[in-house]
Amino acid sequence: MNRRWVLASRPGAVLGDDIFRRDDGAVPVAGAGEILVRNVYVPVDPGMRPAMMDVAIGVDAFEPIPLGAVVGYMTVGRVEQSRDPSFVAGDWVTDMLLWQDYAVTTGRTARKIDCTTVPPTAWLGILGIPGLSAWCGLVCLGMPRRGETVVVTSAAGTVGSIAGQIARNLGCRVIGIAGGENKCRYLTERLGFDAAIDYHAVTDLTGAIREACPDGVDILFDNVGNEMVDAALPTMAVAGRVVICGQIADYHLAPDDRPGIRNTGRFVSHRLTMRGLFVYDHAERFDDAIAQMIGWMDAGDLILEEHILGGFERLPSSFASLFDGSSSGRLIVRIDESLDRDIQGE
Amino acid sequence: MNRRWVLASRPGAVLGDDIFRRDDGAVPVAGAGEILVRNVYVPVDPGMRPAMMDVAIGVDAFEPIPLGAVVGYMTVGRVEQSRDPSFVAGDWVTDMLLWQDYAVTTGRTARKIDCTTVPPTAWLGILGIPGLSAWCGLVCLGMPRRGETVVVTSAAGTVGSIAGQIARNLGCRVIGIAGGENKCRYLTERLGFDAAIDYHAVTDLTGAIREACPDGVDILFDNVGNEMVDAALPTMAVAGRVVICGQIADYHLAPDDRPGIRNTGRFVSHRLTMRGLFVYDHAERFDDAIAQMIGWMDAGDLILEEHILGGFERLPSSFASLFDGSSSGRLIVRIDESLDRDIQGE
Repeated sequence: MNRRWVLASRPGAVLGDDIFRRDDGAVPVAGAGEILVRNVYVPVDPGMRPAMMDVAIGVDAFEPIPLGAVVGYMTVGRVEQSRDPSFVAGDWVTDMLLWQDYAVTTGRTARKIDCTTVPPTAWLGILGIPGLSAWCGLVCLGMPRRGETVVVTSAAGTVGSIAGQIARNLGCRVIGIAGGENKCRYLTERLGFDAAIDYHAVTDLTGAIREACPDGVDILFDNVGNEMVDAALPTMAVAGRVVICGQIADYHLAPDDRPGIRNTGRFVSHRLTMRGLFVYDHAERFDDAIAQMIGWMDAGDLILEEHILGGFERLPSSFASLFDGSSSGRLIVRIDESLDRDIQGE
Repeated sequence: MNRRWVLASRPGAVLGDDIFRRDDGAVPVAGAGEILVRNVYVPVDPGMRPAMMDVAIGVDAFEPIPLGAVVGYMTVGRVEQSRDPSFVAGDWVTDMLLWQDYAVTTGRTARKIDCTTVPPTAWLGILGIPGLSAWCGLVCLGMPRRGETVVVTSAAGTVGSIAGQIARNLGCRVIGIAGGENKCRYLTERLGFDAAIDYHAVTDLTGAIREACPDGVDILFDNVGNEMVDAALPTMAVAGRVVICGQIADYHLAPDDRPGIRNTGRFVSHRLTMRGLFVYDHAERFDDAIAQMIGWMDAGDLILEEHILGGFERLPSSFASLFDGSSSGRLIVRIDESLDRDIQGE
């Protein structure tokens, strides 16, 4: 049996319970040159949401997932059967193998991963698309210089927490914006952020950023959306860079319902640059990024809070929790049958 | 006597009649190393407006002009008296000598201009800050490649009309957005734009841009403000660049009253870049820009419609006309006493 979660209906502004549907099938068979992979670690990614929406209200260049198709994104699994001489059964691989037990793929997209010094889940977090997004967004688009001030939004989230630590490791002063006292304490006490702003606790976010960044903000690394960008723009320093990495607060809104960015006078007065990140544009830098981040991980200078849950059934509810502010760190579901229980901190 | 226009009150959303006040004084005297210049050509620049406003409602990094100070921007005049050996009386110079008959300056900011092959007013238009803004905005920030599609807003305005011709000269397909049939005809018939969109005549500007640019917009060169940018964003091509050169529709609005940019999903889905232009950041390219533009002028490939009015008294009303949509081309006032009459087309 191959358990699979498919898209049952397109999410609107609210994520209903009817978005996903089980549609199990037979275990697929690897053809010539192909490999069959059994998924082990399946993360839940906020970036899946735009692709699940309808073109008309989603971000219009994401290819929408057809209704009835298996949902999901990058996973980590082990080769079960190989008809490609460069893989053997038991190899750990990462690929876009979706929310299902088994998938057939090829060496064209599957990447063998080294799990001798880092756990397999690292390849879904710091060394996966979230970490590469943080590194490429900050380094390639943000172009930080030592001593600059970096503000990260959704800073306790996966990408935000990695981006903030990278900025700190590169010698920047880092301020995180997060919702809630616990998340803020986590940023300053555990991740070494210089300061954190609890946006639940401030009425004037612009004023709070200005107070935390008296010399202005050189880089805004945004994962949230228009409202955060608009609040931060008046605090940007001359030649500041706004990196739009994610827009978790806006994905589910039709453009007309989104907050507008009004403080654009700052673009001219302070010659700002705003760029959107598409991480695969920077694929030629991935090896550099991974090498640098493994170095930081080894030195204890780059960590990611992972919550590993057991149970294939939990994928939909874990996904929903990404959008209600209750989650922090990286949510990963381990889908082996034998582990259908909480194994957090494994 | 030195006639002078000074700032009497700060403009709000509407430009009242009480913004400027005459405050004539004695003709200043050049000290050691200085030169006394008599202004001849004084343009009216929309870019003056933010600096005249209060910090709180204007673009906050522009240094506001103090009340009672002489207003204005770059002018062209002739040296009346020189105490600097590198200038002689009669030399044509350009500098920020404001709305007055006489000003004392130095060789540090005054630039001698060659008026043997181009008229003096060219140094206020194509070869002045407007032309340099068009060139630097398009070339340094827009980075056009042959065959790309460029959309210019306020395309019949000074900067817009120059930017569009530069794009055309560099092998791009150029679409202008302007208000009114006459301006649009001027763009296509006189300036060689490939197409023009009359935003007065369309109800769906995004649709009109999409129709005129079936392959998407590679560069948006905006002089208008948030509403135009928001309308154009859904038409931007992958890796498109938005150059914010001016925001004539927004300068007079408090940030909360400005239209918001909502279509920012495109930044991520199409990895767009938006940058604000501060022309002096590109000063090291000015000589290249001027040389290239003189070449185009000589070949008849770069023109600027100039309206030269006579009369120092006309400066305030000419300035107001910039903001009511009635003006096109470059408005310049020749302030010699002897020419207090229309000398358009001189």
